[in-house]
Amino acid sequence: MQQATTATEQPAEQGNAPRYDLRQIDVDPNFWYPVAWSAKVRKGKAFAARFAGHPIALIRPEYGPVYALEDRCAHRQVPLSKGVVDDKGCVKCCYHGWAFDQQGKCVTVPYLNKEGVGRPVKAYPCREKSGLIFIFPGDPDLADKVPVPDIAQVGNPEYKTRQFSPRLKCHYTFMHENLMDMNHQFLHRRQMGSITARFLGQDKGENFMEARYSFARKGGNQPLAEALIFGKHHDDGREQPVEEVVSIRTTYPYQTLQIHDKDGDLIMDLWACYLPLGETQQVTQAFGLLSVKKPKWTFLLDIAWPVLGLFTHRIFEEDREIVEMEQNAWRELGGDHNVEVFPVVKSLRELLARSGVPNRYAKPLKQD
Amino acid sequence: MQQATTATEQPAEQGNAPRYDLRQIDVDPNFWYPVAWSAKVRKGKAFAARFAGHPIALIRPEYGPVYALEDRCAHRQVPLSKGVVDDKGCVKCCYHGWAFDQQGKCVTVPYLNKEGVGRPVKAYPCREKSGLIFIFPGDPDLADKVPVPDIAQVGNPEYKTRQFSPRLKCHYTFMHENLMDMNHQFLHRRQMGSITARFLGQDKGENFMEARYSFARKGGNQPLAEALIFGKHHDDGREQPVEEVVSIRTTYPYQTLQIHDKDGDLIMDLWACYLPLGETQQVTQAFGLLSVKKPKWTFLLDIAWPVLGLFTHRIFEEDREIVEMEQNAWRELGGDHNVEVFPVVKSLRELLARSGVPNRYAKPLKQD
Amino acid sequence: MQQATTATEQPAEQGNAPRYDLRQIDVDPNFWYPVAWSAKVRKGKAFAARFAGHPIALIRPEYGPVYALEDRCAHRQVPLSKGVVDDKGCVKCCYHGWAFDQQGKCVTVPYLNKEGVGRPVKAYPCREKSGLIFIFPGDPDLADKVPVPDIAQVGNPEYKTRQFSPRLKCHYTFMHENLMDMNHQFLHRRQMGSITARFLGQDKGENFMEARYSFARKGGNQPLAEALIFGKHHDDGREQPVEEVVSIRTTYPYQTLQIHDKDGDLIMDLWACYLPLGETQQVTQAFGLLSVKKPKWTFLLDIAWPVLGLFTHRIFEEDREIVEMEQNAWRELGGDHNVEVFPVVKSLRELLARSGVPNRYAKPLKQD
Repeated sequence: MQQATTATEQPAEQGNAPRYDLRQIDVDPNFWYPVAWSAKVRKGKAFAARFAGHPIALIRPEYGPVYALEDRCAHRQVPLSKGVVDDKGCVKCCYHGWAFDQQGKCVTVPYLNKEGVGRPVKAYPCREKSGLIFIFPGDPDLADKVPVPDIAQVGNPEYKTRQFSPRLKCHYTFMHENLMDMNHQFLHRRQMGSITARFLGQDKGENFMEARYSFARKGGNQPLAEALIFGKHHDDGREQPVEEVVSIRTTYPYQTLQIHDKDGDLIMDLWACYLPLGETQQVTQAFGLLSVKKPKWTFLLDIAWPVLGLFTHRIFEEDREIVEMEQNAWRELGGDHNVEVFPVVKSLRELLARSGVPNRYAKPLKQD
Repeated sequence: MQQATTATEQPAEQGNAPRYDLRQIDVDPNFWYPVAWSAKVRKGKAFAARFAGHPIALIRPEYGPVYALEDRCAHRQVPLSKGVVDDKGCVKCCYHGWAFDQQGKCVTVPYLNKEGVGRPVKAYPCREKSGLIFIFPGDPDLADKVPVPDIAQVGNPEYKTRQFSPRLKCHYTFMHENLMDMNHQFLHRRQMGSITARFLGQDKGENFMEARYSFARKGGNQPLAEALIFGKHHDDGREQPVEEVVSIRTTYPYQTLQIHDKDGDLIMDLWACYLPLGETQQVTQAFGLLSVKKPKWTFLLDIAWPVLGLFTHRIFEEDREIVEMEQNAWRELGGDHNVEVFPVVKSLRELLARSGVPNRYAKPLKQD
Repeated sequence: MQQATTATEQPAEQGNAPRYDLRQIDVDPNFWYPVAWSAKVRKGKAFAARFAGHPIALIRPEYGPVYALEDRCAHRQVPLSKGVVDDKGCVKCCYHGWAFDQQGKCVTVPYLNKEGVGRPVKAYPCREKSGLIFIFPGDPDLADKVPVPDIAQVGNPEYKTRQFSPRLKCHYTFMHENLMDMNHQFLHRRQMGSITARFLGQDKGENFMEARYSFARKGGNQPLAEALIFGKHHDDGREQPVEEVVSIRTTYPYQTLQIHDKDGDLIMDLWACYLPLGETQQVTQAFGLLSVKKPKWTFLLDIAWPVLGLFTHRIFEEDREIVEMEQNAWRELGGDHNVEVFPVVKSLRELLARSGVPNRYAKPLKQD
């Protein structure tokens, strides 16, 4: 077939740009990653989580903190998370009853009267904070030097917070790009009406990058949920500046979206982390916490809460569809063919590429 | 395991026969291929089609002809067919609103005040005829030199025409062989009764091959649908010659089946094209048009129409099952092991092999 | 990611142990393998079975014994088992009607007036015994020298026998290990209560290995089904020795489990064979026959029969889940990481490894 030179037939980021395929850059494991909601790991039970192809057993004894082990018994590799938590807080494998302690040491092989028969399993540093269970999948010696992230408004009585954790069939980098590039409001035209982002500026540093936008509505009705949070905008036919400022920030590996109103008050604060599930990191579990400032009459937010939930759900489903289509195109084309023209996204891509690590299955890009 | 030398353990077409695997021969892209029914592509809308792994967006503006673009936005490769057709007839990508015209040129990147920022997408020559939308996937410079096929009886008021477009999990060549080899009537014994094909002769040329058959019924009841089209055969217990002549012709890449009655009148005319969907061309979308000559009293055909539909559907489902089993055997055996003994099918296989092009993933056959 | 040296990160069987991956050892084809229950292959019909990726057509003529052919027509490789058995006991392919006899010879190509046109298909030695149809997939010359297995209690009026044939998504070797290692009673704690195996001893030889156990109950209620077979145990709070002896024996490639009561009477006799279905042998069809000695009042066993069925079904489902999780871990880890500490299982693994043959797709283990 004749080959016209079109966008999708050339790899992205040509010329003097870095030669990487962003979808083959894994997350840096030397950070704290949330792997489950605290409430899902009940007392005296084990729970199956996953980080980038590594199965993780989270175990919460009746007394004492949650701990995290490799979710494969050292004997026959079946999941420890299917096992039984005993009264010493150890987890017994469901198959032959080998028992492992908090450090992953095998303390009992019940049918052999010998010491030290069983082998250990790997233990992961594990912390609990803001309703999430975090593990440190990288070098355990670095765990104490790297802070568990602060999720600012969780626990702040002035805010009401919603948890969400959708699973997406795409690489985590698509999620960062989707949120950072507010020019994609066209995608949400059915939910948001005709709204246009105005880019106000960006900041960047070694491990972060931030973009700020304001929004202008060009006709159409303001959605109810938006009005409930921001107050009603008067629609007199002219372009209406929406005076809130939206700041999106990737502080590697986390991402936040904050909305400040015209008085500089923080009225919405979203925190998200994108956990890769599979070994090729092309399936992502997002953990998100969305905090909304309570208005003077709190009951108004309580009433609006389900509507707000539906509204964010619908928007999110549009985002999910598009990022999964991006991943699908990557798979069909056998690589990243994005042609980025927006400086903010270019900076973000550089940040993600230099902060992550190449996937072990990544193919080197051809120098042509 | 001991290896007896049986048919399936040797590659097909040995000796001095050509050394190809017919299931790894792609269609020649330098022809017009139907990719959608006209009625499916509505005014002001885009439609997703596919040719051999290439996604195709068909766009029908409010005014003017349908056109065809590569179905991936030049920006982030998501389908343009999910987009919006604007009042200039351009298609705007659903994600960030990049707009493309009929030639695939990017005419707008709405959030950047610069000209010529976006890259183009590939455009395919596109024609509409006989209720079908055709594209020319090969060298665009050849498009005007290659005729869009005539589907003879479509639009002829003496015929009533039925459209069908089943999807089959098999290589397109199995479809050509299935229809060409009328000795497979044994497969349809439940629908057709005991009917036997009599081979009358074949013609062949550079780009076509045709086989002619008559049929004899050996007892059993004539199906109702058959009687409605051909008239009733008297069954006096002897072998009944059915005096119609069935001609099957592959004029590359299309196929027709025509039935002439004893007076030489064309009473049935089937046209089919087998569109490969995936890159390995092992999934096929057939586009078929079946025209039946109207009898003197047209209402008889109208009454028979649903019965005829059911009859052809049942026969087709038997064909589908068998060609998919053939494909499955090819996959399990890792190649084509057919042992063809019927000269007509041998000629057809040669025609298909020399007219197509080797698949890019095809493995060379061993010379043993 | 930092790599701690834990059990699952090292291949199994290190040091001076044999260097094989047991999950890449195929069954030796030079044995008789059951491929279907006799009752499933009705008179005048063909039946589709499978051995290690090889499709098998079992054909039972109206008169005469069942026979087995390669389940691919020599012409176009579609399944002969979809065909018609004619009155000479031949099978006619459903597509073009080629007919094959008991030896796999093509006796008719109905539309060609020539002799010897069609090619043969492979025939497998085939026997029927104890309600099962066996084939000999290996060297046919060895078939008569290798005995069809005796399934001792089938047909013995003192026993009542149940058939089962579950399909499992795991390598057959997991099944042998699961049954042989009675220390896995912990897995069945919900069905069996707190029961502990006591290892009594093992025997081994060139082609077999046997382990014997007794059981002790540590509190908990005795299940109804168990009591119906063995009689009630008195539970006075002390550890109760269960005086039956359980003997598990792999006589390659078959496996049996026998329970003798305190008087030495055989009260339960299980025979099983694990048939690999796919080419990589990672899907298994078990054929099992479970014979239970009839008590003095036979009607008691008849009444208990459904309860016994449910009981064994529940236990089996626990075994299924665990062996499929083992297979899954093997796939994720890319090899066998079992760390076996129980001498019985070590012996069994050696027996299975030396009796089988390496899979054609097996990767050699690294010498590190």
